[in-house]
Amino acid sequence: MSLDLRSDNTLPAHPAILEAVSRANAGTQTSYGSDEFSLRVRARCAEIFERDVDVFPVLTGSAGNALAIGAMTPPWGAVFCHADAHIHRDELGAAEMFTGGAKLMPIPGALGKLEPDATRAVIEEVRDSRRMATLSTLSITQTTEAGTVCSLEEIHALTALAKSNNLRIHMDGARFANAVVSLGSSPADLTWRAGVDILVFGATKNGGFGAELLVVFRKEVAETLSILWHRSGHRPSKARFLAAQLDAYLHDDLWLRNARHANEMAAYLAQGLRAAGLNTLLPVDANIVFVRLPPHTARHLQSMGFQFYDWPIFGPDVYRMVTGFNTPQEGIDSLLGALRA
Amino acid sequence: MSLDLRSDNTLPAHPAILEAVSRANAGTQTSYGSDEFSLRVRARCAEIFERDVDVFPVLTGSAGNALAIGAMTPPWGAVFCHADAHIHRDELGAAEMFTGGAKLMPIPGALGKLEPDATRAVIEEVRDSRRMATLSTLSITQTTEAGTVCSLEEIHALTALAKSNNLRIHMDGARFANAVVSLGSSPADLTWRAGVDILVFGATKNGGFGAELLVVFRKEVAETLSILWHRSGHRPSKARFLAAQLDAYLHDDLWLRNARHANEMAAYLAQGLRAAGLNTLLPVDANIVFVRLPPHTARHLQSMGFQFYDWPIFGPDVYRMVTGFNTPQEGIDSLLGALRA
Amino acid sequence: MSLDLRSDNTLPAHPAILEAVSRANAGTQTSYGSDEFSLRVRARCAEIFERDVDVFPVLTGSAGNALAIGAMTPPWGAVFCHADAHIHRDELGAAEMFTGGAKLMPIPGALGKLEPDATRAVIEEVRDSRRMATLSTLSITQTTEAGTVCSLEEIHALTALAKSNNLRIHMDGARFANAVVSLGSSPADLTWRAGVDILVFGATKNGGFGAELLVVFRKEVAETLSILWHRSGHRPSKARFLAAQLDAYLHDDLWLRNARHANEMAAYLAQGLRAAGLNTLLPVDANIVFVRLPPHTARHLQSMGFQFYDWPIFGPDVYRMVTGFNTPQEGIDSLLGALRA
Amino acid sequence: MSLDLRSDNTLPAHPAILEAVSRANAGTQTSYGSDEFSLRVRARCAEIFERDVDVFPVLTGSAGNALAIGAMTPPWGAVFCHADAHIHRDELGAAEMFTGGAKLMPIPGALGKLEPDATRAVIEEVRDSRRMATLSTLSITQTTEAGTVCSLEEIHALTALAKSNNLRIHMDGARFANAVVSLGSSPADLTWRAGVDILVFGATKNGGFGAELLVVFRKEVAETLSILWHRSGHRPSKARFLAAQLDAYLHDDLWLRNARHANEMAAYLAQGLRAAGLNTLLPVDANIVFVRLPPHTARHLQSMGFQFYDWPIFGPDVYRMVTGFNTPQEGIDSLLGALRA
Repeated sequence: MSLDLRSDNTLPAHPAILEAVSRANAGTQTSYGSDEFSLRVRARCAEIFERDVDVFPVLTGSAGNALAIGAMTPPWGAVFCHADAHIHRDELGAAEMFTGGAKLMPIPGALGKLEPDATRAVIEEVRDSRRMATLSTLSITQTTEAGTVCSLEEIHALTALAKSNNLRIHMDGARFANAVVSLGSSPADLTWRAGVDILVFGATKNGGFGAELLVVFRKEVAETLSILWHRSGHRPSKARFLAAQLDAYLHDDLWLRNARHANEMAAYLAQGLRAAGLNTLLPVDANIVFVRLPPHTARHLQSMGFQFYDWPIFGPDVYRMVTGFNTPQEGIDSLLGALRA
Repeated sequence: MSLDLRSDNTLPAHPAILEAVSRANAGTQTSYGSDEFSLRVRARCAEIFERDVDVFPVLTGSAGNALAIGAMTPPWGAVFCHADAHIHRDELGAAEMFTGGAKLMPIPGALGKLEPDATRAVIEEVRDSRRMATLSTLSITQTTEAGTVCSLEEIHALTALAKSNNLRIHMDGARFANAVVSLGSSPADLTWRAGVDILVFGATKNGGFGAELLVVFRKEVAETLSILWHRSGHRPSKARFLAAQLDAYLHDDLWLRNARHANEMAAYLAQGLRAAGLNTLLPVDANIVFVRLPPHTARHLQSMGFQFYDWPIFGPDVYRMVTGFNTPQEGIDSLLGALRA
Repeated sequence: MSLDLRSDNTLPAHPAILEAVSRANAGTQTSYGSDEFSLRVRARCAEIFERDVDVFPVLTGSAGNALAIGAMTPPWGAVFCHADAHIHRDELGAAEMFTGGAKLMPIPGALGKLEPDATRAVIEEVRDSRRMATLSTLSITQTTEAGTVCSLEEIHALTALAKSNNLRIHMDGARFANAVVSLGSSPADLTWRAGVDILVFGATKNGGFGAELLVVFRKEVAETLSILWHRSGHRPSKARFLAAQLDAYLHDDLWLRNARHANEMAAYLAQGLRAAGLNTLLPVDANIVFVRLPPHTARHLQSMGFQFYDWPIFGPDVYRMVTGFNTPQEGIDSLLGALRA
Repeated sequence: MSLDLRSDNTLPAHPAILEAVSRANAGTQTSYGSDEFSLRVRARCAEIFERDVDVFPVLTGSAGNALAIGAMTPPWGAVFCHADAHIHRDELGAAEMFTGGAKLMPIPGALGKLEPDATRAVIEEVRDSRRMATLSTLSITQTTEAGTVCSLEEIHALTALAKSNNLRIHMDGARFANAVVSLGSSPADLTWRAGVDILVFGATKNGGFGAELLVVFRKEVAETLSILWHRSGHRPSKARFLAAQLDAYLHDDLWLRNARHANEMAAYLAQGLRAAGLNTLLPVDANIVFVRLPPHTARHLQSMGFQFYDWPIFGPDVYRMVTGFNTPQEGIDSLLGALRA
């Protein structure tokens, strides 16, 4: 038996996405983003988000985040984000590089979420210092790194705070699909209608080979972004092959179907773990489960072929299990069976 | 009839590369470059280059160039390159971004090639100024933007000059395969044995979906490069899908076979154009033909479905035709037939 | 009556320093730092620090800090500093600019001092993240922004921690003279013998017109620093006029005499405030006193001509009073008298 | 006998400027630029330039240039300048640092001047490339590095070209006073009325200790500039001491009187050299003379105490002689006498 719950990055692409790339591999296409697939992705996003948008496909989520923040933040700006945000903890200073030296202001918050009061306090600290940085950007992660999902109300509280301080708003949506499924809200409500300026709309973790889409809701940012996209080496010459992935991803709700399966498998896993008397530390809103396990149990499961990582920043004996678009229910049953045995 | 000679970027991927991606799309793999495909690419490069190397796959050639130059050049360094170099003319300052503000020193030179005397003069100008920049990096393009190939002797003259001034050496090898085929020299002789420190080994234009390989011949640069690769958002999480392309590309000499076909088609096209009394401006060493055409002829051909770009920086009425791994000989015959008609 | 306790930046220069500039204003001198005054400053520093050093005069402390950190920290490095450090709170991201995007890691600590345990925890957090930043630089402020002085033991505890993590060490010594006087330790013991790599040795706040000296104890950093000094516009052409200030400052212990007076006046003021039943919040180790006052009392004093700032980040009703090289004891007596009245 | 013609940087400050600094050294002043001297400098500039302006004093001309260009140029912008411009040849990439990687486009031109046709050609090359850089800034040096002065007509031709391409305009005025005296035009006509956005108004070379003034004619740039001024460490805490220099410099036409003397001495020297049958290579519009001398003659003069530099970039056996506000006519007579002997 083997089941890989290490990350949604270890998974293959969804067959429909492979098929789309396959189909796109015929004939020639204008390069650098004027191909028919790129145009279709933009049109499809206009439907999904219920308005005209500018879109820029990139290979990685880090690229998407750094480009979005770089296009909205001056070198002397402050970027407010959760202390566990990917942009702060996992990207080796990509946001700092793309802004030319902005200052990330990490803010602790329960459940992986930015809390409005704590966020306001840090914004005011920067504002009152007058010499720390200028107020610039708020970065929200949806689904959070803790696997939780911010409700519409929680998003609104944060974006209202941001707007009242003239901040631009970036949403790291590496797992945006999982949040949409979890909340049942419309993509428009979760983003621009709440004030989000740029969404990094993830596909890689949810069935792609490697493709993320910058969805831009603020026209005047798009021009800067298009320069930075090229200047940073992130504009693909054979752009159709990123676009084809995204085209298939957005077609026929594949993105939602994939995320729904992943979320369901996580809920099923969490329920089983709790039934086995284990502590799942956080609400399982999306496709990530954190569980406290006796280390010898963890090692035993791993030796049987169940793969998952320990997650020490969430405490001792904590392990992270991530489900994906193709996680088999039988795999989870096996894991739970092994646990009980 | 239709024939696309606009760029090697408008072409699809080679079927063997699609097949490899397809095959790689099974099971799970460790992310961020520790997958089996990435390891195999490194091993395969060690054979091709006859020594141990470090390798970093990226999506685009601009990324490869910017990373290579960024890893070797301080913010105050001078980068010497041809006036037509892609890094100077086509990347919106990617090298400047990744170095933190280095100064590119464009040097004119016939046939798209850096000439040692002109290059030495510029190096000495910077050295003697003492306050312009520090001497840092030489960037050689092989195959050049003019479609010419530098001979081993020409490479040696440049690298000797560079080494005598303690410059690091970058080779932009977006069309490296075409140069290897053209010269019949070994990849090792054309790179590290001549003193090259980093090669950006192109696959995108020669049969890939989008994959270039940074091949690093100087150990101490690899560590910096691995940081910059991540920090710039160019390190793919599902790295296996870039690696699988490169694995297939390097397997069974596909890279050489593809380039050989492209070069042969360019030679065939150039011969036909000359036979029709037209002026091909430059030696056709690789897969690019520049030809002077009466504009109405050009427009007529284009209206028939023969696609190619005008190239005004090479003079009035100049057009560029680029062949690729899958350019059909009959297509060229049709074009030549249409020309004669 | 009037007494300015707003900052040591509001004071004039010491007469001996004006006189030195006056004397230096004769004849011509080689520009850009090869003048006789610059050479003498270096020689004088070699005596004071009991070893050969490289020195670079600059106009401002922010310049000194940014240059020092910029010369030792890669763009992807982490700089560990106190949460109240000037480099983090007061320089609008100068360190981020001069490093090309390094990440400052602010660490809270009582009495304005970095505490080894808290510092170690943050270093380890960055190290363990593996993708946040590389471990690079520790920045110590001596005298701290809270007006406290770190003992030799405290310095050693921090530098030992830094060295065991291969960090370079910067000391922000805008009020270094006040610390030397306060501790009675030798400048060498407080800096390079404890492991400090670069000291920003302040003169502006302690009798200069505007002159700070970068004192470099690590040879290989000096070359980078000399480039960055020029490239950032901080290398003065008529360097003799900064050097002459520093020359007079270091002559005949003026720097120590000035600091001693300032420290004594602060102690005298603090004692008087406490005698009047007021709460001086922190140990008065140097020339800064923080005191809690009823706001109407503060306003009354201010209306009488006693100038000082409120300091809300240290709590409600907190005011900062800074003494300097020329603060008159009678002025303090008047202030205390007014308080009692 | 001794006469220093090496540079206007080797000279002392004018006595009136020393006296002003001396007088400013009384009492306390608000720091960071809100002192009375700073306010007076701004008011005085409003008179001289016949309109409201924003002003920022800095220590060095390189700082002024880098800040001006940095405040107007995005990281991906092109800055068009003369091939001999100080910003390109002498500042170790300060403009690149302060812009975050802009591309300087050096343009050759006779007499040290940008020529409109050559400048237009380079602007169009960048524009047509579409991927080299965006059109951003024109930098004009007045007085040029060749000691020539651009006429009002020449300035207008360049600024019209710039405006028609939406370029912002920077004027490096390290020797602006010499140009004003030479042309007899008003400062307003030579700057904002011609379209200049920021002037770096030099005082250091013309009687200051070290003080240059950024004079900003475009309101919306001033805010960015004020941030960058602080962030780069160029905002002096004891700002009154730069301001006092500038205050005296602008008082009672000292800046014009100093420049007039320097210009007259250069003209006198040039006339004498020509009378001695020597070749002064360029028009002597301001305070710089380039002369071709037999090397043994040069060495002989130098051994007698006449100091000047060789200037190889202007050709073999070329020497540069710079006069200043205090160059004594008898010194020049001695030099000419020694030449004749």
